[in-house]
Amino acid sequence: MCRILSLYKPSVERNVFMKTTKIAVVQTSPVLGQKDKNLARALSLMQEEAADVYVLPELAMEGYNFTSREQVNALAELSGRGPAYEALQAFAQSRKAYVAYGFLERAKEGFYNASALLGPAGLISVYRKTHLFDREKLFFLPGDSGFQIYHLPFGVVGMMICFDWYFPEAMRTLALKGAQLVLHPSNLVLPHCPDAMLTRCLENRVFAATANRVGTEEGGEGPLTFIGRSEVVSPRGEILARLGPAQEGVCAAECDLSSALRKDVTSRNDVFKDRRTEFYLT
Amino acid sequence: MCRILSLYKPSVERNVFMKTTKIAVVQTSPVLGQKDKNLARALSLMQEEAADVYVLPELAMEGYNFTSREQVNALAELSGRGPAYEALQAFAQSRKAYVAYGFLERAKEGFYNASALLGPAGLISVYRKTHLFDREKLFFLPGDSGFQIYHLPFGVVGMMICFDWYFPEAMRTLALKGAQLVLHPSNLVLPHCPDAMLTRCLENRVFAATANRVGTEEGGEGPLTFIGRSEVVSPRGEILARLGPAQEGVCAAECDLSSALRKDVTSRNDVFKDRRTEFYLT
Repeated sequence: MCRILSLYKPSVERNVFMKTTKIAVVQTSPVLGQKDKNLARALSLMQEEAADVYVLPELAMEGYNFTSREQVNALAELSGRGPAYEALQAFAQSRKAYVAYGFLERAKEGFYNASALLGPAGLISVYRKTHLFDREKLFFLPGDSGFQIYHLPFGVVGMMICFDWYFPEAMRTLALKGAQLVLHPSNLVLPHCPDAMLTRCLENRVFAATANRVGTEEGGEGPLTFIGRSEVVSPRGEILARLGPAQEGVCAAECDLSSALRKDVTSRNDVFKDRRTEFYLT
Repeated sequence: MCRILSLYKPSVERNVFMKTTKIAVVQTSPVLGQKDKNLARALSLMQEEAADVYVLPELAMEGYNFTSREQVNALAELSGRGPAYEALQAFAQSRKAYVAYGFLERAKEGFYNASALLGPAGLISVYRKTHLFDREKLFFLPGDSGFQIYHLPFGVVGMMICFDWYFPEAMRTLALKGAQLVLHPSNLVLPHCPDAMLTRCLENRVFAATANRVGTEEGGEGPLTFIGRSEVVSPRGEILARLGPAQEGVCAAECDLSSALRKDVTSRNDVFKDRRTEFYLT
């Protein structure tokens, strides 16, 4: 557990008095296909840390390393339905908190690798992963939601999922639209993302909360090992909280989201106003 | 000196037989206004390392921390003229090499923070810094050249200068246009760039050679300390060569530039083909 930045246990009224927002990343080790067990473990970890926003991994309840479309079909849930949604929504309601978690979405046209954002009053939005990684292309449709922002009581948030980080345009788009905080459920297997997120936050002057999973999962084309290192990063490229590479856990950081409204690098430089789009190829 | 990757002293015919390109970054400590001395020191370091391409710092001969427009005017040179250009062009001709170096360009309409690319046959192109940093805005016009690529015998190169790294669109534009190697003269004072360049190279699958200066320079609004750590980075985000934070020096890496033509992350992912520009805001 990382408790360095967990300075106090907030009451449910804390947003009324506090200017900071407490952001928690929950690092779990889901077992493929064991949705009930994975949900119970996630909730148990969430109970350990009082926060305003919780971010869980990509496909937090289902697991990742699928072997067949039948397996995917058996695990999929409709948006805003199912035991995980119900339990996490109840948690959000009781804590007056917000939760972003990855889930395997069943839609009429097929399956999406999705992330739900829910709050005390229910489902706020679903983001469908834009950039699919490797074997995800065998099972999921490419996301059609684009990069959207949501106005929450404490600030403006956006979502992206795992491999989206690789494309600078993803966080850039969220930041240009006004996101102050990017919620980033992940199942990282490549080593680069945790450090690269410092650059992503710095170049956009936003906070990011990457919740990654740990463990090794059999299946697919062979076992996959997930790299953990879930983290909260500041607009100045500082690691405010980070977990280790192999253990489950939860850690949180108190963040002044208003600082993400300032885009200055020096008194004469602003990362948005200094952009010279006439020279950029897209 | 970093000699780990300097495997041999190439002959002038080496490009005929070798598939790799040797890229050297030259880290100097220019003294403000002492162009002759700074040129002599740069040439001395270049003599220590046989390479195909040399990258020198931003404003390599002039220094950086200007106090007045009169000082800038006194130091400016026309493109493709002056003692530094003549000496570096002679060096390039004798070594059958290419050189990129930052210089203070005098133009009819004002001054630019520029980088010249020259080769055995003379001046190839001049890049004018797109994103000016801090007090540079007091003295320089914003660059109007945009991000261009140049077809050299060993591959396609592009140029950017120092603070351009902060904007992901700069290297993205060069990479999308076809650059395999980005030459990056710099005068870095903020700490982030050397590590951030790993992300820049990874997300674009290109090589980059950042030549930074060292030392502390009085002037301007107070002294500036430059962070060194000049480096050559691979398309896989590996540091192929890197110098220290405080000492002058030269280091080089043998690079297979053809590897920058491959944009694969996995057998199913390609960083360019996977882009979904319909969802990107610019």
